[in-house]
Amino acid sequence: MPYLEEIELKPIGFVKTKAIGKKVRDKSNVSEIILQRNLAEALEGIEDFSHLFVMFWMHEISKEERRTMKVHPRGRRDMPLQGVYATRTPHRQNPIGLTVVELLGVQGNIVTVRGLDAFNGTPVLDIKPFDDWDLTEDVKVPRWWMSLEKERSEKHKTQ
Amino acid sequence: MPYLEEIELKPIGFVKTKAIGKKVRDKSNVSEIILQRNLAEALEGIEDFSHLFVMFWMHEISKEERRTMKVHPRGRRDMPLQGVYATRTPHRQNPIGLTVVELLGVQGNIVTVRGLDAFNGTPVLDIKPFDDWDLTEDVKVPRWWMSLEKERSEKHKTQ
Repeated sequence: MPYLEEIELKPIGFVKTKAIGKKVRDKSNVSEIILQRNLAEALEGIEDFSHLFVMFWMHEISKEERRTMKVHPRGRRDMPLQGVYATRTPHRQNPIGLTVVELLGVQGNIVTVRGLDAFNGTPVLDIKPFDDWDLTEDVKVPRWWMSLEKERSEKHKTQ
Repeated sequence: MPYLEEIELKPIGFVKTKAIGKKVRDKSNVSEIILQRNLAEALEGIEDFSHLFVMFWMHEISKEERRTMKVHPRGRRDMPLQGVYATRTPHRQNPIGLTVVELLGVQGNIVTVRGLDAFNGTPVLDIKPFDDWDLTEDVKVPRWWMSLEKERSEKHKTQ
């Protein structure tokens, strides 16, 4: 390893949402990202993008959870054990969350977005515009992913 | 700010590539991600995905560069100044790179990918599978983005 120093990050702001528990994962959930006041000018022009990547620090993950090697996808014991890097589990060496959100508006240092699955008070590390380079064709996913997704969409239909 | 502690990350591995300078940004560039040996088991199942997100630490960015508020997109002075969060510049508070790559293969602790625009020796922070939830419709980008993209594709055509 040519470089094994520790890396220090500082939150650029935090998430403000009324959603609690599982409701955070609802795609229609609207949240505010409250940036540090001095970073407001670093948002200039962001409103011309429709979608953003939000990177956030999942601060509730313990040191022990960060040593997890394998998980059952979404905690489902009927799904095959997978390496953490084959899933989006928060239990990973560096628990950085990543979500594509819809940008609803910007006012000063406050960015309003739809679809951010982060809890109230979560520190935000970075915001990046989503652009055509991030669109990918012929995306393939494993069988377990499709089976969970099918189940989810059927559940939605019957609600 | 409810939480302003510093956050410490450790690289999970590093990038190995023969590409240097601008060639790193060539979408056909093949790189290896060499993970720490003990993390090999955390890759199990990743080969069932076609695409990954790679998060990496842009370690060559200085403390001063991390205080940048505005930039000309891709260094082009003929493009309007934008806030850093409206661009993908490495000059940002937390210089974490994010790229969607194509997964070519996995062998032990080595992940071979196509399209990773990170220099040789770059520390890797996280790898996440790209799935259908990350696909987004009706993506809108600013006029400056489209004009740079048009230029780029015309340049490619004439090469």
